[in-house]
Amino acid sequence: MRDVAVIGVGINKWGELWDKSLRDVFVEPALKAIDDAGVDHIDAMYVGCMSSGLFVAQEHLSSLLTDYLGMGPIPCCRVESACASGGLAFRQAYIDVASGANDIVLAGGVEKMTDVDGGGATYALATAADQEYEAFNGVTFPGLYALMATAHMHKYGTTREQLAHVAVKNHANGVLNPEAQFPMEVTVEQVLNSVLVADPLRLLDCSPITDGAAAVILCPLDMAKKIAKNGAAKIVASGHSTDTIAFHSRKDLTEIASTQRAAEKAYKMAGVGPNDIDFAEVHDCFTIAEICVTEALGFFEKGHGGKAAEAGETARDGKMPINPSGGLKSKGHPVGATGIAQIHEVVQQLRGNAGKRQLKNPKRGLAQNMGGSGGSSLVHILEAI
Amino acid sequence: MRDVAVIGVGINKWGELWDKSLRDVFVEPALKAIDDAGVDHIDAMYVGCMSSGLFVAQEHLSSLLTDYLGMGPIPCCRVESACASGGLAFRQAYIDVASGANDIVLAGGVEKMTDVDGGGATYALATAADQEYEAFNGVTFPGLYALMATAHMHKYGTTREQLAHVAVKNHANGVLNPEAQFPMEVTVEQVLNSVLVADPLRLLDCSPITDGAAAVILCPLDMAKKIAKNGAAKIVASGHSTDTIAFHSRKDLTEIASTQRAAEKAYKMAGVGPNDIDFAEVHDCFTIAEICVTEALGFFEKGHGGKAAEAGETARDGKMPINPSGGLKSKGHPVGATGIAQIHEVVQQLRGNAGKRQLKNPKRGLAQNMGGSGGSSLVHILEAI
Repeated sequence: MRDVAVIGVGINKWGELWDKSLRDVFVEPALKAIDDAGVDHIDAMYVGCMSSGLFVAQEHLSSLLTDYLGMGPIPCCRVESACASGGLAFRQAYIDVASGANDIVLAGGVEKMTDVDGGGATYALATAADQEYEAFNGVTFPGLYALMATAHMHKYGTTREQLAHVAVKNHANGVLNPEAQFPMEVTVEQVLNSVLVADPLRLLDCSPITDGAAAVILCPLDMAKKIAKNGAAKIVASGHSTDTIAFHSRKDLTEIASTQRAAEKAYKMAGVGPNDIDFAEVHDCFTIAEICVTEALGFFEKGHGGKAAEAGETARDGKMPINPSGGLKSKGHPVGATGIAQIHEVVQQLRGNAGKRQLKNPKRGLAQNMGGSGGSSLVHILEAI
Repeated sequence: MRDVAVIGVGINKWGELWDKSLRDVFVEPALKAIDDAGVDHIDAMYVGCMSSGLFVAQEHLSSLLTDYLGMGPIPCCRVESACASGGLAFRQAYIDVASGANDIVLAGGVEKMTDVDGGGATYALATAADQEYEAFNGVTFPGLYALMATAHMHKYGTTREQLAHVAVKNHANGVLNPEAQFPMEVTVEQVLNSVLVADPLRLLDCSPITDGAAAVILCPLDMAKKIAKNGAAKIVASGHSTDTIAFHSRKDLTEIASTQRAAEKAYKMAGVGPNDIDFAEVHDCFTIAEICVTEALGFFEKGHGGKAAEAGETARDGKMPINPSGGLKSKGHPVGATGIAQIHEVVQQLRGNAGKRQLKNPKRGLAQNMGGSGGSSLVHILEAI
């Protein structure tokens, strides 16, 4: 397999994009990524999208999006793994380029979530859970993550305040991100006093409903060194794992086993360990998720994720910066786009192009994206070149 | 890239499977394929499914299906390209094995279409068209293919009877297929007298709504020669192309440009031409589709597809047997599964395992799968080894 690099990235301002349809939302960052890469064509495209069928009654994105991007008739593959669809699109694009099948490949993600009402969005998102054993019985995603939070608090003594610190930190980062949906600071008190969604999770523990897209351009490393207009980052590992879809099949609700296994594969492939990672973008769909994920990635001991957030260890100036982009919490969470936006942030940080939120000279970044309540996870590691 | 072969195939009896949910429908042929291959594990899985979100309110198939197959935590990628989702799953599995990322990979397809009513199915299928310019204005798929048929009749003099001959031939083949949904003979008169759906297409010109799945096992060719329990077939080409999603952007409604381009790529990759193909499984979602596709593949001159069908050239004993399995028309069309079922038939024919419908010693078979009204197409060529 060939070495592969990312040479271009693009994102648009996320939020409630009433004046744009799914195709418009996608094309803008895709064109930005192509321009950033400095290429005049792409050979193939992968698009992550969770449920354009339920959100906007449109499938067949391979045809629609190559068409509207003006890149037809190139091959295009839409992939879905619930909220990990973007990370999966990136992995498949990586395998494609590594295999030699194609040279310049766009990996994108998109979700247009606000064309249905709140109930419709909750219904669509619940299709990431086991419909027959979970969703049909009334379980929603805030409910599932509330169970996870309750278990973590019970087993490890994680506190309500520690959860709040995750939101406070990610919103502080998001203020520095011009594309973020909610770039405003919040305090621990505001999180604790926000409306209760599913005990113990409150509104400010939850990532929002968002319209948005992101795109990145991959090519062989050798080619990247010759053609990259604005710098490149090398993909040194891709880890992918599934897990049981339903909570009733899990041994421990505080563990995200798919992330743990995907990370083990990625660390092995890159020949590094958690201590060799300079920063990470992780899947904070709820505050408790970031705590469980940072433990699953080996950044903190099991049960210590909440304490680490409270102590500032995950802040931009902490020992392990987590979600310098603002994360799903502040930046927004258009589910199919999230995994690609994480790669966007990792590449911008490694190229030194992250603007006001730039970390100090990071050399190696990690992106972790997961579907549902952890039924699938992708972990990618990239290095500055 | 490594040479790749198919070493196992599985399918279940297709139809209205009221007593099975999507996961049950999928697992049965997947286990058959694993057994047929003689392997005790798989390293990764690709699943084609068009719209499990709209049909059964379930996304996140990567987690659900690895879980219920007992193969978690292996990586799994669900892909979607409307009715070409199965062919796309096969292509992605091929690239995966060819790249060296994984050795033994399952490519499957599934669709559970009868859990919604007829209107719900038509709504879900219409998401393969351009929603904003076609479907929202009332266009349905029988309507789109009726436009194609009308244009073909006008331009080339194709007759209503010629369309009927496609259905008659495919049903005659389906009688020999124990897994077919509608294994009964029909006559030209019955087709011409069946209820009008969208002029000039009648009920017996249309493929049915079907629950079903299929699966195949891929591995490197070198490994296949050592481990295949029931024989293998070599994948010699994979061609993939998109086209504009909406009819208003096409130059000629009688041409399926995505199939033509995917075929050109596949012929070039295999170093063969249309005359070197012994038989083909093609996407006869409507009778007119088979006529246009056999022209796009170069089996017949443009405008001669209907005449060829009428003259018996596409029958099992004709010079170019098309759809020996019975095709979508008789076998059924669970959209995400169709592309994999085509590979199933090609492999069974090449291994000499096609039972009563076995062709005489075929050496090279082609499978063509397309999405929507031709917005995406996959063409694969396999050879006996």
